[in-house]
Amino acid sequence: MVPHLTTALTGPLLDLEKRFIDGGASIEQWLRRQWQEHTPPFYASVDLRNSGFKLAPVDTNLFPGGFNNLNPEFLPLCVQATMVAIDKICPDARDLLLIPENHTRNQFYLQNVARLAAILRHTGLNVRIGSLLPDIASPTTLNLDDGQTLTLEPLKRIGSEGRRLGLDGFDPCAILLNNDLSAGVPEILKNLNEQFLLPPLHAGWHVRRKSSHFQAYSEVANDFGAYLGIDPWLIDPMFGVCGEINFQERTGEECLAANVDALLTRIRAKYLEYGVNDQPFVIVKADAGTYGMGIMTVHDASEVRGLNRRQRNKMAVVKEGLPVTEVIIQEGVPTFETVDEGVAEPVIYMIDRYVVGGFYRVNAARGRDENLNAPGMHFKPLAFEIGCLLPDRGQAPDAPPNRFYAYGVVARLALLAAAIELERAAPAAA
Amino acid sequence: MVPHLTTALTGPLLDLEKRFIDGGASIEQWLRRQWQEHTPPFYASVDLRNSGFKLAPVDTNLFPGGFNNLNPEFLPLCVQATMVAIDKICPDARDLLLIPENHTRNQFYLQNVARLAAILRHTGLNVRIGSLLPDIASPTTLNLDDGQTLTLEPLKRIGSEGRRLGLDGFDPCAILLNNDLSAGVPEILKNLNEQFLLPPLHAGWHVRRKSSHFQAYSEVANDFGAYLGIDPWLIDPMFGVCGEINFQERTGEECLAANVDALLTRIRAKYLEYGVNDQPFVIVKADAGTYGMGIMTVHDASEVRGLNRRQRNKMAVVKEGLPVTEVIIQEGVPTFETVDEGVAEPVIYMIDRYVVGGFYRVNAARGRDENLNAPGMHFKPLAFEIGCLLPDRGQAPDAPPNRFYAYGVVARLALLAAAIELERAAPAAA
Repeated sequence: MVPHLTTALTGPLLDLEKRFIDGGASIEQWLRRQWQEHTPPFYASVDLRNSGFKLAPVDTNLFPGGFNNLNPEFLPLCVQATMVAIDKICPDARDLLLIPENHTRNQFYLQNVARLAAILRHTGLNVRIGSLLPDIASPTTLNLDDGQTLTLEPLKRIGSEGRRLGLDGFDPCAILLNNDLSAGVPEILKNLNEQFLLPPLHAGWHVRRKSSHFQAYSEVANDFGAYLGIDPWLIDPMFGVCGEINFQERTGEECLAANVDALLTRIRAKYLEYGVNDQPFVIVKADAGTYGMGIMTVHDASEVRGLNRRQRNKMAVVKEGLPVTEVIIQEGVPTFETVDEGVAEPVIYMIDRYVVGGFYRVNAARGRDENLNAPGMHFKPLAFEIGCLLPDRGQAPDAPPNRFYAYGVVARLALLAAAIELERAAPAAA
Repeated sequence: MVPHLTTALTGPLLDLEKRFIDGGASIEQWLRRQWQEHTPPFYASVDLRNSGFKLAPVDTNLFPGGFNNLNPEFLPLCVQATMVAIDKICPDARDLLLIPENHTRNQFYLQNVARLAAILRHTGLNVRIGSLLPDIASPTTLNLDDGQTLTLEPLKRIGSEGRRLGLDGFDPCAILLNNDLSAGVPEILKNLNEQFLLPPLHAGWHVRRKSSHFQAYSEVANDFGAYLGIDPWLIDPMFGVCGEINFQERTGEECLAANVDALLTRIRAKYLEYGVNDQPFVIVKADAGTYGMGIMTVHDASEVRGLNRRQRNKMAVVKEGLPVTEVIIQEGVPTFETVDEGVAEPVIYMIDRYVVGGFYRVNAARGRDENLNAPGMHFKPLAFEIGCLLPDRGQAPDAPPNRFYAYGVVARLALLAAAIELERAAPAAA
């Protein structure tokens, strides 16, 4: 089950959504069996796109940075799920070290860190925040716009032969990363074998690839589709990959154009099969990386051949200035949801294997076939539906909680894919 | 952590409540350690009384019957906690049999059963309802006032040598009792060793004694008080017991009077110590049994010596017409909460070890020193506090969520006492 949320849509439910609701009990049983075999990441957020004919994840974030955007009503759910996660990992835990991104001025991100720390503290953990920033040489208190404060402290290696990570006077049992390691694993995080590091280092973008995630997701979608008797394409965005790309030197352009063309052809065939009249498009994005950087919408292979300097510059680097050398070409899923007259996509938050909330990413400056994680976006927390029951066949099929149930199912399939992806990426045991 | 609830009180927090909030992290750590050693009952509800000077449980129900009174906003919390409980007990479960009380006309109770079944179904279980009523010889569908329906089916022994319990075409992995077994264990529930029976049979009122629960609770309160540095009396109602009572034949009256007198003396001493000006009173109630039957408020030992016929009749029998032969004499805790101009007491609901919601029992026809579980009562669901964080030292100390945190702590102490009580009552392994 998932929380009881409103969605932006009020129209009739898709056939797919009806299938999910009718099959709710067997879907939950199927998921429960999967979680007996796979361990969910500590937390994750999943960006979904609902095109009316298709409902699919387009990005899965293993270091979610928008806990501040969740409706405060969801906090008890977050806390309860975190209690379950902590119990499994380290039930004797008292002290937890949280390592955030290296932002000291991004108020939204800092509020996310404050919210995350609050959730963890409510489970009974003593939480302190360790910064990877070299500038933080002593405890530094930041004032947040909402009146809260956040104290960042310098990390230090402690214990016998410096085998542990902590702070001055703080030797944590577990370390929670909210830093996606785009720039690689800092020395101070290496060779920590005595403490629980969550998620593991190989969840970082220095090694993670979107294509590995969506490969695992395709397998999950196939299994789930076979179980439920649905075409997995209805929940799975097709994709291709190009390595050895250099946008500045224009190498790999042919691989890119060929992949775009092949994928557009496959999408066209599917649109024909389902009678979809939309114009097919693909999203080209860095195979490693996040923050909505290095992303373009492409409707025809010719568009990637003739990139001008500005477009090439935009695609060439992502967060931390890292060059893009591998790209994923992903089937574009248009969104047919709008909020406040802006194009919207739901973002679902999970802790352990539980859906704990979500919000809409809204961007009035973007089209329904574009990446919304871009300047102009804002967030709209999902609200509890008051006074009605949870997703229920007894309700009208277009009741918002019923629609949202489908979102929670697809988000959890992506979570399962992330679990499998992390298993495969795990370094072999010594 | 507990859900984020409103309370009826708006005055300043008690010193006790402040202690709980300041000690939140260490309280959660203490509770987590307890749950490593003790297994919580599948579910429970606890009636609390807050007198301003004292906050204590007065009854712990192991077959909670008011899920319909929980705010629907809490359902996701109920579902998430139930998923955790089911995972621990029987992760492969698909089919669960729910056995309710033998009511077919009590709309409130039937709505409780419907709500409970809905929660269980949302975790992915196939839930069917088996009735102990001899009248239910074939599937019988009841129409509920809120438009729902509930189908009761006759129980039958199935499997090899009839060692399992099920329904026609239904062989469940787990059986959830929502029937308190006041009338004893029916033959059809005996010798079920292949299925999970929740809670175990020895949680039934045919063997359970309030005094065993409050004995365990006193021990829990002592340990917790020592840990937190508070007088356990602030959270623990004192009590005495009389066996061999026969109200009709007026035997045991002296034991009762002596116990009432002794307890009133102890309360007076405590009131003196804390400067409480209230008139001490005790509650005399059947040591086994529920439903608010067989309960009286006593301010002086002379009152139990001169019971008139009507009072004796009232005390002599409880649910299912069972005679009362043992009574508990419990320190009366006045309530200083009012809702809708009626005297009110919070009732806290828990699934597994999680607080999942609560409501106020309100009775405008009763005084602040009386049992409120009586004709005239109504229920007021507790609402989420919208727009503020969870119990937090950053908030004003009299913020309602802070007050409610204390309720969740005391309720969980009673839950822990129930766990210990059940361990002690468990039949020795064969």
